[in-house]
Amino acid sequence: MNYPNGKPFKGNKSQVGRTYEDKPSKIDYGGRGMSLESDIELSNSYYLNHGVAVIHKKPTPVQIVNVRYPMRSKAVINEAYFRTPSTTDYNGIYNGHYLDFEAKETKNKTSFPLNNMHEHQVLHMEACYQQSGIVFLLIGFKSLNEVYLLPYSKFKYFWDRHKKEIKKSITVEEIRKNGYYIPYQYQPRLNYIIAVDKLILDESEDRV
Amino acid sequence: MNYPNGKPFKGNKSQVGRTYEDKPSKIDYGGRGMSLESDIELSNSYYLNHGVAVIHKKPTPVQIVNVRYPMRSKAVINEAYFRTPSTTDYNGIYNGHYLDFEAKETKNKTSFPLNNMHEHQVLHMEACYQQSGIVFLLIGFKSLNEVYLLPYSKFKYFWDRHKKEIKKSITVEEIRKNGYYIPYQYQPRLNYIIAVDKLILDESEDRV
Repeated sequence: MNYPNGKPFKGNKSQVGRTYEDKPSKIDYGGRGMSLESDIELSNSYYLNHGVAVIHKKPTPVQIVNVRYPMRSKAVINEAYFRTPSTTDYNGIYNGHYLDFEAKETKNKTSFPLNNMHEHQVLHMEACYQQSGIVFLLIGFKSLNEVYLLPYSKFKYFWDRHKKEIKKSITVEEIRKNGYYIPYQYQPRLNYIIAVDKLILDESEDRV
Repeated sequence: MNYPNGKPFKGNKSQVGRTYEDKPSKIDYGGRGMSLESDIELSNSYYLNHGVAVIHKKPTPVQIVNVRYPMRSKAVINEAYFRTPSTTDYNGIYNGHYLDFEAKETKNKTSFPLNNMHEHQVLHMEACYQQSGIVFLLIGFKSLNEVYLLPYSKFKYFWDRHKKEIKKSITVEEIRKNGYYIPYQYQPRLNYIIAVDKLILDESEDRV
């Protein structure tokens, strides 16, 4: 059954947030073209549907100022403003571990600029780390087509260096040395939980 | 220094999300008048500022359709719609434990009506529970002025009963028997982490 606009009717599940089914999607498995955010989204759906982990991206925080209630239709927000998020974008649970992370993509080929990060996000990461959370960044180098997991415990050093105005960025080499490379694969495309496993193992050794 | 409207100037921190300081607030310590949500909000701020736990309420999910960019002022969202949340409202970390919960208040004196809960929220709670999360509901009886923590593991039974159309609600007695009473106190006003401690202890015994 098709709708008048020619689009096939698939129910309105996608309008009510993430569902518990695999969604069909047009994926270019060549390893290019998708954004880091949509790669993570697909991985999170895969993890949810396969009972691996429950990770969600938080909704964009919005300050709602005015809402209209047109007759016989749903409420329309007609005045709202973006708020600065006070946490990272992603959190959830993986096999008893609290996971908390931020994902950032850069077009830069040689380094990750730290002006991408906000002070309150780093404070949030520190607070979660103090509570024994698994805290990290997923950093995508778009032009290199490479993604790394950088543990918060390592990131801290570079953030301090940035705040002392010594260096505004982390070089790719530094990220390669301190992070975990996440290769693209078939399904899920960006299997970042493998890197999380390594981090959990390494941190449990460090913390003991 | 007061603003022309007579309100004292306190900076605009509250507009950019939760801060890491104790906020002064007009609290009626008599135990009435505040909503469950604002009580939880105050407790979460207290927990964050005292290094006890990092728990945040998720932003309301909104589907943004149109944004205006007026000259020399910030972006205005002028068309957006509320989306149905696919998770619970609160999650975070407490001493290495992943916490996930929903808070609901009822004016009903004798029972908690289950039409308050959405199927996808319960699916989310189940998924988090399967990953060994600490999952529960905070249920407030406004007219009784009582708040209970009901573990998801107990809630499941009542939800199944509801889905089988046997009973549409959970009685106060059932909640008292299966949940943990959270007394109001000075600071934080609603110290629900004490009930979480009991739950963690009880669940670790059950799961062994």
